[in-house]
Amino acid sequence: MKSHFFTLSDYPNGLPERELFTLDSQSLPDLNPGEVRIRNRWLSVDPYMRGRMSGQHTYVAPFRLGQPMEGGAIGEVIASNDERLKEGDIVSHMGGWRDIAQISSSGVYPLPNADVPEQAYLGVLGMPGMTAWTGLNRIAECRPGDNVLVSAASGAVGSLVVQLAKAKGCHVVGIAGAAHKLAWLESLGVEPVSYRDRSAHELSDAIQLASPEGIDVYFENVGGICLEAALSQLNEGARIAVCGMIGSYNAEKPTPGPSNLSQMLVRKAKMQGFIVADHWDHYSEFLKEVAPQVTAGKIDYKETVKEGLESTPDAFLELFKGGNTGKMLVALER
Amino acid sequence: MKSHFFTLSDYPNGLPERELFTLDSQSLPDLNPGEVRIRNRWLSVDPYMRGRMSGQHTYVAPFRLGQPMEGGAIGEVIASNDERLKEGDIVSHMGGWRDIAQISSSGVYPLPNADVPEQAYLGVLGMPGMTAWTGLNRIAECRPGDNVLVSAASGAVGSLVVQLAKAKGCHVVGIAGAAHKLAWLESLGVEPVSYRDRSAHELSDAIQLASPEGIDVYFENVGGICLEAALSQLNEGARIAVCGMIGSYNAEKPTPGPSNLSQMLVRKAKMQGFIVADHWDHYSEFLKEVAPQVTAGKIDYKETVKEGLESTPDAFLELFKGGNTGKMLVALER
Repeated sequence: MKSHFFTLSDYPNGLPERELFTLDSQSLPDLNPGEVRIRNRWLSVDPYMRGRMSGQHTYVAPFRLGQPMEGGAIGEVIASNDERLKEGDIVSHMGGWRDIAQISSSGVYPLPNADVPEQAYLGVLGMPGMTAWTGLNRIAECRPGDNVLVSAASGAVGSLVVQLAKAKGCHVVGIAGAAHKLAWLESLGVEPVSYRDRSAHELSDAIQLASPEGIDVYFENVGGICLEAALSQLNEGARIAVCGMIGSYNAEKPTPGPSNLSQMLVRKAKMQGFIVADHWDHYSEFLKEVAPQVTAGKIDYKETVKEGLESTPDAFLELFKGGNTGKMLVALER
Repeated sequence: MKSHFFTLSDYPNGLPERELFTLDSQSLPDLNPGEVRIRNRWLSVDPYMRGRMSGQHTYVAPFRLGQPMEGGAIGEVIASNDERLKEGDIVSHMGGWRDIAQISSSGVYPLPNADVPEQAYLGVLGMPGMTAWTGLNRIAECRPGDNVLVSAASGAVGSLVVQLAKAKGCHVVGIAGAAHKLAWLESLGVEPVSYRDRSAHELSDAIQLASPEGIDVYFENVGGICLEAALSQLNEGARIAVCGMIGSYNAEKPTPGPSNLSQMLVRKAKMQGFIVADHWDHYSEFLKEVAPQVTAGKIDYKETVKEGLESTPDAFLELFKGGNTGKMLVALER
């Protein structure tokens, strides 16, 4: 049986060229003990993957050039050398960017039992959802009544953050670009603010208008003018959860940071970076709290779906052009 | 009886001109109930006072133009309408920038009983010492064995931070400018690093050389290239206590922040601003821990002393030119 997979041919500077991604294939050997073979049905592409293309060890190891790339995926077990897993099981694992994954079973998990489409475990009930919940609660220590600001608020993570904050009884402002994203945010009870064609100062004014009582919690996905504008509106004791800075992932040279970082001092604010991988021991807590809200339809989530393995690099690259509303996914033939 | 005091005639942009400070005087009225009259012996000038000259409410109210300025001071009670205080008591209070202070007794405290010179309560055992202790322990959560970096390390606060960290069993790197400051740091067992004539990148290399195992705690007094260099050397889970950003206090226009703020995410670091005023309920804890070290001579502290009330504005302005080693003080006639 053959596996088709993407490899990276070089570490890019700036936004990766499509040509850096090569579709390759290999005939799979027999299963080793403890291995499992999975036919993937859904692949995840996520902004953090850009960090693995830098060639430098950041918080995850870089992709190895010429080797199958990795990422979250949902698939069906078609052969197993681990008694914990059997043919027909639907599982989540990290053997993405390919159609057939043959990997150690140690990172392969059957899906929890909730009444949601399976691909939700790559989004609202998976890594992005867990990221939203962790950043909002465990890092930013969000409390009912807080004034919450979220950048990239219509993305896979941001759209969960705004809804979890609303459910907590917070006043929520969401920054996004396209009109249909702003409209979606508004439909969720969020004050939508566009960053388009605005300076940091103008964005700051818009945030002030949307949240006249300042900002207690800022969930940071973007950096750049969003961070500068947020800093200018912080309340005393504000907390900033730094989940991502997608605005700088493809920068070809260093770009200056916010000119008003001294607001951290003036407002006695806290800023903290976090990686969801460090918090997985709280996944069941997250699931217990959020899954019922999803199955009851109280949390709205969107997906942007590309079809076919070949579209995976394009799906990934569109993340940096605002091409997704909610979770960006690749659907494979089933 | 006359009081001589300084007033501010305008809110400066950039480094204040000496001419903005006016020496004025007034005849003191009789004491009101609850008031006390104090002959000052020592005046404190501190970088945070620049924030009170901005005309904007930051974390303290601005100085009022034409009114007596305020600041930490040590003096002798010469008349009292509060039974808690009697003539001859040596007290600390906020009626500085003047020779005779006539103020409400509510913010006037007799000096604690420790075998140190009285002006130590404006420095090592006063606000700067308490700031160092609070930032290092309560904000940066410094632990034995941490690699600690301190900017403005020979200043009133920084020189205490480095010694408290050394006493905890930390490896400590101190950033300063002048050769005699670097030499003092070295005599304290601190790895001295000069920021002079260095880019952020060069400073980063120098810090790496001085602390090959990275930085776990950064005590921030300066901002600018110090922050950028520190961010580049952070270990995972590093903590940054933002005590001051003196490098930007006199900036006439916004200056860009560090280009590598995304290190907060990559290193899962925490940055937190703090104001010592919020932590005074821990002052006795601080005193119990630090006063014995000071009286036993285990903590070295330096003072830079200007003579006479007239020198107060110059003493203040020299803070921004590296004019002080340790605590900057003004001694009045006794």
